[in-house]
Amino acid sequence: MSSASSSFASRRLAELADHDAFLKRHNGPDDIDTHAMLSTLGVASMADLIEQTVPRDIRLGRELALDEPRSEAEALDYLGQLARQNRVAKSFIGQGYYGTHMPAVIQRNVLENPGWYTAYTPYQPEISQGRLEGLLNFQQVVMDLTGMELANASLLDEATAAAEGMALCKRANKKNKSNAFFVADDVFPQTLDVLKTRAEFFGFELVIAPAESLGEHEVFGALLQYPGDSGQLRDLAPLLSIAAERNVMTCVATDLLSLVLLKEPGALGADIVVGSSQRFGVPMGFGGPHAAFFATSDKLKRSIPGRIIGVSKDSRGATALRMAMQTREQHIRREKATSNICTAQALLANIAGFYATYHGADGLRTIANRVQRLTTILAHGLKQAGVALAHDTWFDTLRLTGVDSGKIHGRAMTHDVNLRFFADGDVGISLDETTTAHDVTLLFDVILGDEHGLSVTRLDESIVADGATGIPHVCQRESDFLTHPTFKRYRSETEMLRYLKRLENKDLSLAHAMIPLGSCTMKLNATSEMIPVSWPAFAHLHPFAPRDQVAGYHQMIDELAAFLVEITGYDHISMQPNSGAQGEYAGLLAIRRYQAAQNEAHRDVCLIPSSAHGTNPASAAMLGMKVVVVECDSDGNIDLSDLTQKAEQHRETLSAIMITYPSTHGVFESHVRAVCDVVHQHNGQVYVDGANMNAQVGITRPGDFGGDVSHLNLHKTFCIPHGGGGPGMGPIGVKAHLAPFVANHAVTPIEGVQATSGAVSAAAFGSASILPISWAYIKMMGARGLREATELAILNANYIAKRLEDRYPVLYKGENGTVAHECIIDIRPLKAASGISEEDIAKRLMDYGFHAPTMSFPVPGTLMIEPTESESLYEIDRFCEAMIHIRDEIGKVENGEWPLENNPLVNAPHTMADLIEASWDRPYERELGAFPTEAVKAAKYWPAVNRVDNVFGDRQLICSCPTIDEYRD
Amino acid sequence: MSSASSSFASRRLAELADHDAFLKRHNGPDDIDTHAMLSTLGVASMADLIEQTVPRDIRLGRELALDEPRSEAEALDYLGQLARQNRVAKSFIGQGYYGTHMPAVIQRNVLENPGWYTAYTPYQPEISQGRLEGLLNFQQVVMDLTGMELANASLLDEATAAAEGMALCKRANKKNKSNAFFVADDVFPQTLDVLKTRAEFFGFELVIAPAESLGEHEVFGALLQYPGDSGQLRDLAPLLSIAAERNVMTCVATDLLSLVLLKEPGALGADIVVGSSQRFGVPMGFGGPHAAFFATSDKLKRSIPGRIIGVSKDSRGATALRMAMQTREQHIRREKATSNICTAQALLANIAGFYATYHGADGLRTIANRVQRLTTILAHGLKQAGVALAHDTWFDTLRLTGVDSGKIHGRAMTHDVNLRFFADGDVGISLDETTTAHDVTLLFDVILGDEHGLSVTRLDESIVADGATGIPHVCQRESDFLTHPTFKRYRSETEMLRYLKRLENKDLSLAHAMIPLGSCTMKLNATSEMIPVSWPAFAHLHPFAPRDQVAGYHQMIDELAAFLVEITGYDHISMQPNSGAQGEYAGLLAIRRYQAAQNEAHRDVCLIPSSAHGTNPASAAMLGMKVVVVECDSDGNIDLSDLTQKAEQHRETLSAIMITYPSTHGVFESHVRAVCDVVHQHNGQVYVDGANMNAQVGITRPGDFGGDVSHLNLHKTFCIPHGGGGPGMGPIGVKAHLAPFVANHAVTPIEGVQATSGAVSAAAFGSASILPISWAYIKMMGARGLREATELAILNANYIAKRLEDRYPVLYKGENGTVAHECIIDIRPLKAASGISEEDIAKRLMDYGFHAPTMSFPVPGTLMIEPTESESLYEIDRFCEAMIHIRDEIGKVENGEWPLENNPLVNAPHTMADLIEASWDRPYERELGAFPTEAVKAAKYWPAVNRVDNVFGDRQLICSCPTIDEYRD
Repeated sequence: MSSASSSFASRRLAELADHDAFLKRHNGPDDIDTHAMLSTLGVASMADLIEQTVPRDIRLGRELALDEPRSEAEALDYLGQLARQNRVAKSFIGQGYYGTHMPAVIQRNVLENPGWYTAYTPYQPEISQGRLEGLLNFQQVVMDLTGMELANASLLDEATAAAEGMALCKRANKKNKSNAFFVADDVFPQTLDVLKTRAEFFGFELVIAPAESLGEHEVFGALLQYPGDSGQLRDLAPLLSIAAERNVMTCVATDLLSLVLLKEPGALGADIVVGSSQRFGVPMGFGGPHAAFFATSDKLKRSIPGRIIGVSKDSRGATALRMAMQTREQHIRREKATSNICTAQALLANIAGFYATYHGADGLRTIANRVQRLTTILAHGLKQAGVALAHDTWFDTLRLTGVDSGKIHGRAMTHDVNLRFFADGDVGISLDETTTAHDVTLLFDVILGDEHGLSVTRLDESIVADGATGIPHVCQRESDFLTHPTFKRYRSETEMLRYLKRLENKDLSLAHAMIPLGSCTMKLNATSEMIPVSWPAFAHLHPFAPRDQVAGYHQMIDELAAFLVEITGYDHISMQPNSGAQGEYAGLLAIRRYQAAQNEAHRDVCLIPSSAHGTNPASAAMLGMKVVVVECDSDGNIDLSDLTQKAEQHRETLSAIMITYPSTHGVFESHVRAVCDVVHQHNGQVYVDGANMNAQVGITRPGDFGGDVSHLNLHKTFCIPHGGGGPGMGPIGVKAHLAPFVANHAVTPIEGVQATSGAVSAAAFGSASILPISWAYIKMMGARGLREATELAILNANYIAKRLEDRYPVLYKGENGTVAHECIIDIRPLKAASGISEEDIAKRLMDYGFHAPTMSFPVPGTLMIEPTESESLYEIDRFCEAMIHIRDEIGKVENGEWPLENNPLVNAPHTMADLIEASWDRPYERELGAFPTEAVKAAKYWPAVNRVDNVFGDRQLICSCPTIDEYRD
Repeated sequence: MSSASSSFASRRLAELADHDAFLKRHNGPDDIDTHAMLSTLGVASMADLIEQTVPRDIRLGRELALDEPRSEAEALDYLGQLARQNRVAKSFIGQGYYGTHMPAVIQRNVLENPGWYTAYTPYQPEISQGRLEGLLNFQQVVMDLTGMELANASLLDEATAAAEGMALCKRANKKNKSNAFFVADDVFPQTLDVLKTRAEFFGFELVIAPAESLGEHEVFGALLQYPGDSGQLRDLAPLLSIAAERNVMTCVATDLLSLVLLKEPGALGADIVVGSSQRFGVPMGFGGPHAAFFATSDKLKRSIPGRIIGVSKDSRGATALRMAMQTREQHIRREKATSNICTAQALLANIAGFYATYHGADGLRTIANRVQRLTTILAHGLKQAGVALAHDTWFDTLRLTGVDSGKIHGRAMTHDVNLRFFADGDVGISLDETTTAHDVTLLFDVILGDEHGLSVTRLDESIVADGATGIPHVCQRESDFLTHPTFKRYRSETEMLRYLKRLENKDLSLAHAMIPLGSCTMKLNATSEMIPVSWPAFAHLHPFAPRDQVAGYHQMIDELAAFLVEITGYDHISMQPNSGAQGEYAGLLAIRRYQAAQNEAHRDVCLIPSSAHGTNPASAAMLGMKVVVVECDSDGNIDLSDLTQKAEQHRETLSAIMITYPSTHGVFESHVRAVCDVVHQHNGQVYVDGANMNAQVGITRPGDFGGDVSHLNLHKTFCIPHGGGGPGMGPIGVKAHLAPFVANHAVTPIEGVQATSGAVSAAAFGSASILPISWAYIKMMGARGLREATELAILNANYIAKRLEDRYPVLYKGENGTVAHECIIDIRPLKAASGISEEDIAKRLMDYGFHAPTMSFPVPGTLMIEPTESESLYEIDRFCEAMIHIRDEIGKVENGEWPLENNPLVNAPHTMADLIEASWDRPYERELGAFPTEAVKAAKYWPAVNRVDNVFGDRQLICSCPTIDEYRD
C-alpha cells in the first residue's frame, strides 16, 4: 500500500494513468503560483514554510501510508464496484425510513447543484435569502402538518430530536421536580436507544411502559409515538390531557406523511412534536442524512433547540429573513447546557420543504391516500386469508402475528423483498410513496405463498365500496394545511424550476466566490465526490436492511475508517456521529464509559481552554462533566502553568481536556505535546477537537502527539459540502483503550463495541450516504495529494496574513512568525480609530462579492480568515485587494472625508434597491457603492436585501411564511 | 394498447398509481387556470375552442392509440430496462468516435444544468453573452488546433461538415469549372456515404482515389483525411501545395486530439479543415449529438457555412459578443442555396470548448501524449509478436494485416472488447483518453492470446529509452496553441465551476422566464426526460458497436418510431436526420428517389408558399429542385387558385409542395386538405414541415390530411432542449411508398431501406443519445396528456392574443377568429405612429425579464408569440402585463412625453452600467429603466451588455477570443 514499496514499473504505469489529474484540480495554486507566494513570504520552499510553522517534535516525517492518487474515473470505477456489492431490495421495513421519490427537478437543481450544496450556514442573511426562504417553507410545512405554533429549521435525526425533546421537557418544566421521563413502549427502538444514552448522563430515569399507562407515573415529561412503532393509531388526546393536568410535558414523535390524514398532534394537546422528514423526498441513504423536525407551542419559543428562521426587516424596511435568536448559538450557557446542537440538516430540510412545495396539499393528499388505501387493501387481503394483525388501525404499517416468519423470510429473500422481522416472530410491513398495486400482490405472494388467490382490484373495489380505512374516525384530520400561496404556485415543473433557480441565485455560495470562514474550511466539494451520493445503490438502502445486502457500504466504510486511522494516528474510527457536536459528545462519552469501566466514574472534570469553541463546554456539560477553564497566555497559547496547576488541583476528579489543534487562534502551539503529557500524567484523557484537522493531514497526527480521541468534521477537512448548514458528519477516532466504548446500536449492533454502549444517532453509521464523498476525496488525493493540500492551505493563509498585515494586524502567530491554515486579523484598533466595526467590514465585503470571514470568534472584534488549499492565487489576490480597498475606505472615515453614519461601510451591503433611488444623498457615488472594483463589474453578485435588523426580528419572532400582505409592507 | 379497451379494473389500478402526475407537471395551467382562460375568451369549453380553431375535416376524432400516461418513476424504470439491454463494451473501434472523460464539473453544471440546456439560440446577444463566450472559446480552440484563421461555432457532424466543405469548395472557387470533387480513399466510410448523397443532387462527380493521386485529377476541390481512416499519418504539405497550384480548393478532415501533437493543417496549406470535437469530453452516444467543427482561411469568411460568433461592441462601447453575419441565416439565397444549415450543436460545442478550457494546452498535451505513447507500446508489442501493421505511422490508430480476424473476434467478444473488423480481414484498433496500460495488456491478450508474454512496462521502458513515436518528424507540431488567458485561468475545479456559473448567469433561459418564440416551441424540458441521457448505457455506446450490444437502443428507437407513426399518421419513421433542416433534406431526398424509381426523375419543381421558412427553399435547392413560389391571400392563407394555376402550369415537372401546418402565420388553414389534393392530382408529393407539430398532436395528423412526408423537430414538439442552439433531431415520417427511399447507412445498413439510398448523417440514427428524451415525454404524457398539451398550447396562444389585441393588432386569425398555438402581432402601425420598432420592443422586454418573441418572421415588422402549454397562467399574465406596460410606454413616445431618441424603449436593454452612471440625463427614472414593474423587482434578470452593434461586428469580423487589452477598452 505504501508508495515507498512501489517499484519503478508501477510508477511508470502510474505516469501513464495521470494519477495527479485530480489533485491538481482540487488544489487552487499551481506550481507557478506556489512559487510566487513563497517568494512573497520570503521563504525558499514549501518544506521551509512547514519547518517554520509546524513544531518539529510533532511532525510525521514520512508520507502517509495511503495509495497513490487516483483519477476521478478510477475512483468512481472502484466505488462503482463497491456499490455493486450492495443490493437494492424493495423495502417494507419502515421503522422511520421509507421509500420516496425525490422529484427529479429537485434532485438535479438542489441536491446535485453546487449553488445549493456548497453554501454556508446562513449567518450572513443578506446573502442567504434563498436558502432562508427554503428553510422557512420547511418550518411552515412542519407547523402546518403538526399543528404546532413554532418549528425549527431541522435537527439531525428523529432519535436525537426526541432526546432534545426530553431535555426541553426538563428545561422548560422547572416546577416539576421529578427526574423521570416516560417513554411509551412503542417508540422506535433506535429512538429509545439514543434516549437511554442521553438520559444516563443527564441523570434521568426512563420509565418505559405502554402509552396508556402514562397517567400512572411520576414523571416530568413523556414521549409518545404516533403512529406507534407497530403502526397502531391511538387517540392521544386523553393521554395528553391527563399529562397536562399532571404538569407533565409531552413530546410526540410522529410521521409527516401520516399527518396529512391524521389529526395533528398540536390539536391533540402535545407540547413538543418531533420526527423525520426523510420520506418527503429524501432517499433513505442507509440511515442519512435527513432532516428531523422539532415543533413546539409558542410558549417554548425561547428554549427550542436548534436554528430557527425568522422574519425580520432590512435597513430599508423590506421583509428579510434571518436566523432568529442567533445569539443563543455557540453562546449557550456552557456549564449548564442541555444541548450542544450547533448545526442542522439544512440541505435536506430544504429538499423536504421543496418536496411539499412542489406537491402542495393536494399532491400530499394524493400520496398519503394512496399509501393508506394500499395498506388497507393489504390488511383486508391478509385478514381474508386468515392472517392475524396486531391491531386494527393503520396508516401505512401492519404488524402480523402468529405467522410462520421463517417461511415468510425465505419467500421474501426469493422475491428481493425486505420486511421487518420482530424478535417475537411477528412480521412488520410498511408501505410508502413508491409502493404500487403490483407490490401489494407481491406482498401477498411473500406472506401467503403464490396460491393466495387474492386480487388487489377486487379488494380495492370492496374497500372503496365500504369506505374502509385503517384510520379511526377520531384520528382523522379535519384541519387544512399548506394554504399559503407558496404551496400553490410552484406546481408545474417549469414554475418549480424557476423558483429553485431564483432562490439559488439569491445566495452566495462557493460557486460564486471564496468563503474564507475561519475554522469552517470551505474547500472544494468536487463533483466527482458528489456523484456517488445519487447512485441508487447508495441512496436507496434502508439502514436496517439485511447485512448481506449492504456489503458494499460496509467495505466502503471500513476502507474510509482505515484511511482515517492512518491520517489521524488513532486505532479505531466510530462512524456513527452525524455532526461535529455529536462527535464531541460521542468522544467524551467514550471517555466517561472507559473511566467508569476502570472504576473511575467519579472523574468528571473537563479542562477547556478559554479559547475553545462554545460547543466544547456544552458537550462536556451534557455528559454531566464539570467544566474548568484553562487560561491562555498573551500569545493565545494554552498557559502551561495554569494547566498544570488546574490538573493538579483536580487530579482526583480529572476526566479530560478538550483542545483544538492547531488552536482556534490559528497557530500550531509548540508545546502541544507538553499539554497532552500534563493531562496524561494526571490520569486524564486528551480530546483533540478536529475542527482544524485541515492543517494537520499528512504533516502531523493527533494520535501521535497525545490525543486519545478526536472527532473529524468530514464536512470540513474531508470535503462533504456544508449544504447551507448541514449535513455534516463527525466520526471519532480513538485510541485502542477507548474503542470498546464508542457508540453501539440497538438494531444493528456494531462489532467490537461493548453491548451496553448505547447509540448517539438514529442510524449505526450516521449519515452513511455522504461517506462516499470523503472516501473519494482521500482516494483521489492519495498520500501525496493530501499532504500537498495541507501545505497549500498553510501557504495560502500565510500569504493572506502577509499581504494584509500592514493594514490589519494579525493577532496571533507561531514562534517563527507564521500562522497555521487561518489567521485572525484584529479590527479593534481600527474600530477605536474610525468607528467602523468588524461587522461593517463583513457586510462591505458582500459588495465586493465575498462572504465574510468568521466574525468575532474566538476573539471579539476580530475576523478569522481561512482560505483553504482550493482557492487559487487569483481569487486570494482578489480577496486581499478587496480588503485593502476596504482599509482605504475606512481611512476616509477615519480622516473625516466620509461621516461615520453615512459611508459605504455602514451602508453596506448595497442592493439594487439602493442604486435605483432617484435621489442619491450619499457622499460617494453609486458606482463606488455597488461596484467598487473592476473585478466586481466583471461578475457582480447582488445581496438580496439590505442590512438585516437582528433586534427587530428577535423581538417579534415570526417563523412562518409571511402573508402576501406582509411582503407588500 | 388503446385506452378504449382498458377495463374498469385497470383504470382503478391506474388511479392507484397516479399516472397523471407527470402531465400535470408538464402543463402550466391547472384546471382552475384553464377555466379562467376559457372564460376570458368567452368560450364554454376546451372542446369548443378546438371546434372553433381546427377545421373539422382534418380532426382526428379519437384519442391517439398510445398508452395511458406513466409517472416519471415508471417511465425511468422501463427505460432502465431498455438501457440494460445495451452492453457497454470497451470500444477500440475509433473511426471518428472515441471514448472520452467528460469532466464531472462540466457534466453536472452544463450538460445536466437547465440554465445551459434550456437556452435558445443566441439571436438576442444582450441576454446570451455566457454561451456566446463559450462558443467563442470553441472557435478559438478549433482555430488554434487547426491553425486556421476562422472557425464557425459548430456543425452537425463530421460527415455533413465534409459535405459542407465540398459545397464551399465549389461556391468559393468559381474560376475552376470542373464538376468533379476528389475524395481520398482513406476518408471515413460514413463521410464518403454522406458525400455521395450530397454530390448526386449537386451534380458533382466524386473521384475516389488514393490521396497521393490528387494531382492527377481535374477537380474543383479535394477532401483528405488526416490522420487517415486506417490511422496512417502522411505529410499533406506536398499534396496541398500541388492542389493550390492547380486551383483546387482543399478540405482536410482531421481529429482535434491528434492535432495537439500533429502539424496543423493550416500550416500545411489547407483551405478548409473539418472534423468532430466529440472526443473533447462528449460521450459517443451511439452516434451523437456532438459538435463538428469547420475552419477556413480568412478569405473564405463571407462564405463559411453555419453560425459564427463574433466580437462587437454594445451601445456603451463595451465589448460584446454576437452571432456575426446573422443576416445570412434564414435569408440565404433561397433558389441557389448550397447549404440549408440553420442550426448548430451549441451545447456540445460549449462542452468541447469547456473541456479544452479546463485542460488547457498542458492538459491536452498530457492526454494526447499518453494516447500516442500507449499506441506506440501497442504497435511495438504487436510487431515484436510478429503482427504486421498496415503502416508505420500512427497517432492513436493501428491497422493489423494478415491476422486471423475470426480468432481475434472470438477473443474480443470474450473480453467484452470491440475492435474494428475490416471487410478484407484487417483489424483496426484505436486508443483514446480512457485507455489505460491495463487495456493495452488486454489488447495483447485479445490479438495474440494469453500466452504473448509481452509486458507493457518493459515495452514502455524501451520506447521511452529510444524516443520512439508513431509520428514522423515532418508531421510533428511545432506551434503553440491555447495561449489565451482563458485557457490558463480555469484549471482548478473551483475556478472552472465559478466560470461556468458566471457564464450561465449571464444568460436568460427557460430557468428564468418564458421564451415565447413563435415556431420554436420553447416548452418544458423535464428533468426526468434528461436523466437517461447521462446513463452510461446510452452515453457510452459506439455507433458502430455490434448489433447485439445495442438491442436496448434499437428497441427504444423502434418504440419511439411507433409512437411517432401513431402521432403523425405516417407509415414509417426514419430516425437519421439530426436537425430539422437535415430532415427537410432527407424528406425531399426520399421524394426525389421515389420519383426517380417511378421513372419520373425529371420532376424537379417544388412549390413553396411565400410564407415559408427560408430553410424550405434552401433544402429544395440542395436537391437540385426549382422553387416556384405560391402566393398567399390577404388572410395569410395559401392562395388556392394561385396554387392550382401553378400546379397546372408545372404539371409535367411538379415534384412536391412544401407547406407548414398550422401555417407559419399561426393559423389552421381550413383548406389544407384541398391544398394537398391539388398537388396530388398533379402527381406531386406533399411535404408538411413539422415546425408547428405542437399544434397538431392528438388533434390532427399530417399523414391523414394529405402529407406524404414530414420532418419532426423533436427539439420543438418532443421536448429535446434547444441547448442554446442545438442539438436538434429531425426524423422524418413518410407514407409507405416513400419508406424504401429514406436514408440508409454504409456502415450500419438499415433494414427495409433501398441499398442504394445513401446517408444524410454520419450516424445511422443521428443524435441517438437524445432520443430517450422524446421517448420519455411521449411515454409520460400518454395519449391523453399529449392531446391536452396541444389544447393548452392553443388555449395559451388564444389567451395572449385576446389580452393583447386591444393594444397590438393580431395579424392573422382563422375563420372563427381564433389563432393556433402562436399569434403574430403587427408592430408596423405602432412604428409608423411612434417610431418605436419591433426590435425596440424586443429589447425592452429584456428589462421586464423576458426573451423576445420571434422578430419579423414570417412578416417583417411583426412579433410572433408562442407560449406553449408549459407556461402557467401566472407567467403568461406577467408577459401580457409587460407587453401592456410597453404599449403604454410607446404611447408616451407617441404623444411626445418622451423624445424618440431618448426613452426606455430605444435605450433598452438597461444594464447595471446604466444604473450606476453618476449623472442621469434621461427623461425617466432609473427605476423605470431597469425595474419597470414589481414583478421585476422580485426577480431581476440583468442583460450583461447594452444593445449590441450589429453593423460594427459584421464590418470588423473578429471570431477569436479578445485579448485582455480588448476587454479593457
